Amino acid sequence: MNERIFQENNRVIKRFFNLDSQTYEEGALSVQTKEMLGLAASMVLRCDDCIRYHVGKCHEEGVSQDELMEVMSISLIVGGSIVIPHLRRAVEYWDLLQEG
Amino acid sequence: MNERIFQENNRVIKRFFNLDSQTYEEGALSVQTKEMLGLAASMVLRCDDCIRYHVGKCHEEGVSQDELMEVMSISLIVGGSIVIPHLRRAVEYWDLLQEG
Amino acid sequence: MNERIFQENNRVIKRFFNLDSQTYEEGALSVQTKEMLGLAASMVLRCDDCIRYHVGKCHEEGVSQDELMEVMSISLIVGGSIVIPHLRRAVEYWDLLQEG
Amino acid sequence: MNERIFQENNRVIKRFFNLDSQTYEEGALSVQTKEMLGLAASMVLRCDDCIRYHVGKCHEEGVSQDELMEVMSISLIVGGSIVIPHLRRAVEYWDLLQEG
Amino acid sequence: MNERIFQENNRVIKRFFNLDSQTYEEGALSVQTKEMLGLAASMVLRCDDCIRYHVGKCHEEGVSQDELMEVMSISLIVGGSIVIPHLRRAVEYWDLLQEG
Amino acid sequence: MNERIFQENNRVIKRFFNLDSQTYEEGALSVQTKEMLGLAASMVLRCDDCIRYHVGKCHEEGVSQDELMEVMSISLIVGGSIVIPHLRRAVEYWDLLQEG
Repeated sequence: MNERIFQENNRVIKRFFNLDSQTYEEGALSVQTKEMLGLAASMVLRCDDCIRYHVGKCHEEGVSQDELMEVMSISLIVGGSIVIPHLRRAVEYWDLLQEG
Repeated sequence: MNERIFQENNRVIKRFFNLDSQTYEEGALSVQTKEMLGLAASMVLRCDDCIRYHVGKCHEEGVSQDELMEVMSISLIVGGSIVIPHLRRAVEYWDLLQEG
Repeated sequence: MNERIFQENNRVIKRFFNLDSQTYEEGALSVQTKEMLGLAASMVLRCDDCIRYHVGKCHEEGVSQDELMEVMSISLIVGGSIVIPHLRRAVEYWDLLQEG
Repeated sequence: MNERIFQENNRVIKRFFNLDSQTYEEGALSVQTKEMLGLAASMVLRCDDCIRYHVGKCHEEGVSQDELMEVMSISLIVGGSIVIPHLRRAVEYWDLLQEG
Repeated sequence: MNERIFQENNRVIKRFFNLDSQTYEEGALSVQTKEMLGLAASMVLRCDDCIRYHVGKCHEEGVSQDELMEVMSISLIVGGSIVIPHLRRAVEYWDLLQEG
Repeated sequence: MNERIFQENNRVIKRFFNLDSQTYEEGALSVQTKEMLGLAASMVLRCDDCIRYHVGKCHEEGVSQDELMEVMSISLIVGGSIVIPHLRRAVEYWDLLQEG
């Protein structure tokens, strides 16, 4: 679908998509830390597709299960019980990735 | 004001406040990383009091200015231009803390 | 300011304002219960002006301090720690009303 | 899935889950009123899983259909037309529960 | 489902539904502009059912593909990367409508 | 404050700020329509600084008072009564601009 959107001649959308990728590149913070930050932000804003993406990236970047759970716990405390359904789906997806 | 609220005999509120403190204690993740996660979550939910609190903690925990700016950049990309007024106030408060 | 807005010939806005008032009238639920529902909704959406309005109405309708704190506790659990600054200001305003 | 999450040694998440249950226990307010408050908060935050849970609890606690509709109407006025899709699904689930 | 909800004797809900329809009628602004405004508001609030409805209306009202993409780009910049999954589904639905 | 932020060597933030400006440039849609779209999005997300900015731009671009009120009415219906405090402040600022 991203390819479909790139076919459009809308520069703002294209540039936003590029900028989105650059945001998570190694900088003063490691890719791992940045992906955890992206995950926490996605959790409290309750965006399942975004959560899934960042859980995948956290897995790739070697985040441990205890670390992941601490990202979840911060998101839960900040965002409240409405975060729970997303937390469940995030852990379900994480388990799937762990099983490989 | 927290003291005032603790005078109430509402156990749920008291326990939530205690739990909130425990959340940011050293664990699998460092206090520094946890405070940056709390900051990103507060930025995208646009809670100025929360942002101020976590910017202060990030400063105490030795987060560098470049690191702080990367937390801000992730929050901005995830949460969009409505984050900008909060980003401005966060940087303003950071500058104040840097001046000591 | 409401008077100023009613001077406009925008029917949708006028009708919305009227509908907003009707919503909290006695029905199957008492005005008291409705005002507590309005307060909980305003707390989790973090609208300080709305919270203040419904705290005032709860006070008028004879909601007790323990009841008010339970509305606050539900809002806090559902909405998370970002609700705390609003909870503080709500209790502060409640105390002011109690002092008369 | 809650059992799965309880297997983790993350105290914050476990305590939050326990606190979440305590919140809706009988207190100064009845369980019925608390469940309606939880429903209104879930409606305006547009969390379908949470809405479904509280609609079920309201049904168990003997909330009448007219009362439920008034909770919905307050949520609709406070949260606006974006609440409508959730209102539809809530009423659909309520009808299912009524049919038994 | 709207018919089902209209069977209820809840005046507030019925009036809100009527008011919702009136809002998008021709006025100082054209129906086309109003539907684009409704779409932008629905995009940033991330309500898929609402987005789908307004994308359909924009199509009926003769909004061009370039115009639609500009509504999307504004929503993306204002609301951030969490808007992306909704943008994808909106374009997918638009393509379906274009194919007729 | 924007100048202060531009002093930082954070490319993501700088590029986002530039992209934000490009978004509202004349395209398939006029600047006037784009500013109204930005205003509706800011209203439902309840960002006062953003609302103020777009109300100012709408005024510059010759949006009439009836048109502005229709943007407000759509925002109110989509976002609900929590939009009211922001609507009041928006109209207050508009009146100030009209007085010149």
